[in-house]
Amino acid sequence: MRVLGVDPGLTRCGLGVVDGLPGRRLRLVQVGVATSAADLGTDQRLLLIERRIEEWLEEHAPDTVAVERVFAQHNVSTVMGTAQVAGIAMVAAARRRIPVALHTPSEVKAAVTGSGRAGKQQVQTMVARLLQLEELPRPADAADALALAICHLWRPAGALGAPQRPPSSMTAAQRAWAAAEQAARR
Amino acid sequence: MRVLGVDPGLTRCGLGVVDGLPGRRLRLVQVGVATSAADLGTDQRLLLIERRIEEWLEEHAPDTVAVERVFAQHNVSTVMGTAQVAGIAMVAAARRRIPVALHTPSEVKAAVTGSGRAGKQQVQTMVARLLQLEELPRPADAADALALAICHLWRPAGALGAPQRPPSSMTAAQRAWAAAEQAARR
Repeated sequence: MRVLGVDPGLTRCGLGVVDGLPGRRLRLVQVGVATSAADLGTDQRLLLIERRIEEWLEEHAPDTVAVERVFAQHNVSTVMGTAQVAGIAMVAAARRRIPVALHTPSEVKAAVTGSGRAGKQQVQTMVARLLQLEELPRPADAADALALAICHLWRPAGALGAPQRPPSSMTAAQRAWAAAEQAARR
Repeated sequence: MRVLGVDPGLTRCGLGVVDGLPGRRLRLVQVGVATSAADLGTDQRLLLIERRIEEWLEEHAPDTVAVERVFAQHNVSTVMGTAQVAGIAMVAAARRRIPVALHTPSEVKAAVTGSGRAGKQQVQTMVARLLQLEELPRPADAADALALAICHLWRPAGALGAPQRPPSSMTAAQRAWAAAEQAARR
């Protein structure tokens, strides 16, 4: 299964493609950042980001696009652009009939570090470890896009339907995440 | 000059096409609302709205698309969807190389009523009067889309560059708006 993770942003939009299956080894396919200059109009900035996202969808043909769920409480100065880029990514996927999944930042952190309150550095370290990269993926937006893809790939089956016991084949991080997910339902 | 006004929203997105020139009579071309059912996923809802916007762009070939500028301080429960639809409208226009203009709700109210703090009812009444409609345009989202288009058409030249005296050919509402615009710059 191939997932494109999208960490939405108008200045830098993280993009990361990962192959994997729940409980199996992960493989990095590509990681990068779509950027747009702040001196352009918002419509032109959105168009640039959309084109990059479409190129990635075309080239990598992901089975699912995982987008960070944006909340209105986020950084007020950037949240509108972030929401707009998230919308652009969702509709670009929907146009190609690719399913879209939204994951919250804390779900993503819990998926790769075991804690929903992990810091940026910890997320980068774990993404590099899980994907067996020799260097930390930079910038942070790129690492976050990979973490989103991993979060989606490792999302336990129980999280989508009825709660179920995490199978023993899960990694420690997956078990921790399944537990966090269960706790959040109570 | 033909303007498509877009009052963005995920449940109801107002669309209104108006022909006109600064200081000249306005003509309603078409008004309507693009809707999406709340039980669909956000990606599918955005796709439905995008398709409607594209149909309108195709059919009416506006010279400019005027979109309401969304602020993070708006209604928190709906602001993310509103921002996403605004982004979808902007990028749909940008893809066709149609210029996009953003106008704030108070600019729009001032353009059609002379007051940036006018109520919904007052905006509807003035939109109907300015377009010589026999009935108030409903729902409010449709009226707001028409008001956005009027706001853009009647935007005084001075508002885009150096401030200038409103020409005597302006209507009372235009003069009031130009004055409000000047006041906002001080």
